[in-house]
Amino acid sequence: MRLRNVKNKEEILLSSHFLVKDPYSYKGRWYEYFGNKNPIYIEIGMGKGKFLIECARNHPDINYIGIEKYDSVVAKALPKIPDDLNNICVIRADAHTIEEFFQSEINQIFLNFSDPWPKKRHHQRRLSSEDFLKRYDSIFKNEKVIEMRTDNRELFLYSLISFSNYGYVFESISLDFHKDYNPEETTEYEDKFSNLNYPIYFTRCIKK
Amino acid sequence: MRLRNVKNKEEILLSSHFLVKDPYSYKGRWYEYFGNKNPIYIEIGMGKGKFLIECARNHPDINYIGIEKYDSVVAKALPKIPDDLNNICVIRADAHTIEEFFQSEINQIFLNFSDPWPKKRHHQRRLSSEDFLKRYDSIFKNEKVIEMRTDNRELFLYSLISFSNYGYVFESISLDFHKDYNPEETTEYEDKFSNLNYPIYFTRCIKK
Repeated sequence: MRLRNVKNKEEILLSSHFLVKDPYSYKGRWYEYFGNKNPIYIEIGMGKGKFLIECARNHPDINYIGIEKYDSVVAKALPKIPDDLNNICVIRADAHTIEEFFQSEINQIFLNFSDPWPKKRHHQRRLSSEDFLKRYDSIFKNEKVIEMRTDNRELFLYSLISFSNYGYVFESISLDFHKDYNPEETTEYEDKFSNLNYPIYFTRCIKK
Repeated sequence: MRLRNVKNKEEILLSSHFLVKDPYSYKGRWYEYFGNKNPIYIEIGMGKGKFLIECARNHPDINYIGIEKYDSVVAKALPKIPDDLNNICVIRADAHTIEEFFQSEINQIFLNFSDPWPKKRHHQRRLSSEDFLKRYDSIFKNEKVIEMRTDNRELFLYSLISFSNYGYVFESISLDFHKDYNPEETTEYEDKFSNLNYPIYFTRCIKK
């Protein structure tokens, strides 16, 4: 995603009650933050938040946490969250630190249009690399469920192989997600590419 | 594959020494048939044989067995096998009976352009269905290796999910096999579709 600076971003970040300033203090007890024991789904790299906000609105019995590392992007997402939603929040953090604020409490991870890191020497930075799958192990509650969407074929095939080699089993695979599934919730990026008739790749995989 | 009758097919079948008339008698001891303990790779649905003949020529240290159920197709394949090849033979049989003539001795299975059986109620007839994967378990020697090529996207995605759910792990996946790998050995069908620039899907997967 191209980053544009956002004026007053510090102010937006400080003033929004959807941004959790001390995520480390909720490690292992995010149910306290939400005030219920509903399942918790996270999106790593939430971007401007459209997908997660739609999820939160459509599924009030699931709690959603968006993780985003760039201040400017978080500052764009936060004002879009409707004030009446109480099942969504945002953490400003790098995915590498995910184990510092979650432990055995996540039910599903969304990886939507993640950075493809095309250079071979950067593949371990991909959010579907073995390095990250290891990190995810400790944050999942029981069954591990990952849903991935991407327009990047190379990242997609890499991810299928990576998931498979790490013990994940595929529940569904699509090479044209919008045609096959007509999803209710979509990201900004996805709408753009889907409108151009570019295929979106999708998989949902599970590790028991 | 469209079947055309072949004149004198009975004669061709009876006279070719590449057709094993009593495959059941070699069950568990195909190394005796070949006179060596080289790895054995089989192609289920060998069609007119181009792929397997090219394999046998290029890899003299591997033994190849083609399985084909239609007499007319076998009768087209047999005359094409060069007489000097001693690492290839053909079995005329239905894949459902595969456990009757192999036991713990196969190193790799090729599924090339298998019948896609598009109707849902026929999916169990697909050579990558759980039903067939169970049959293959008993014929593999140690590690189970399957390579699949197909031009049928729906069969391909079904197969990835089926392999994965049966414990196979992917070593490679391609959505454009000829561009990505430029393979040495190809089937007749594959040449035709690749020349038309239709993508060929490919996977190689392993179960330990």
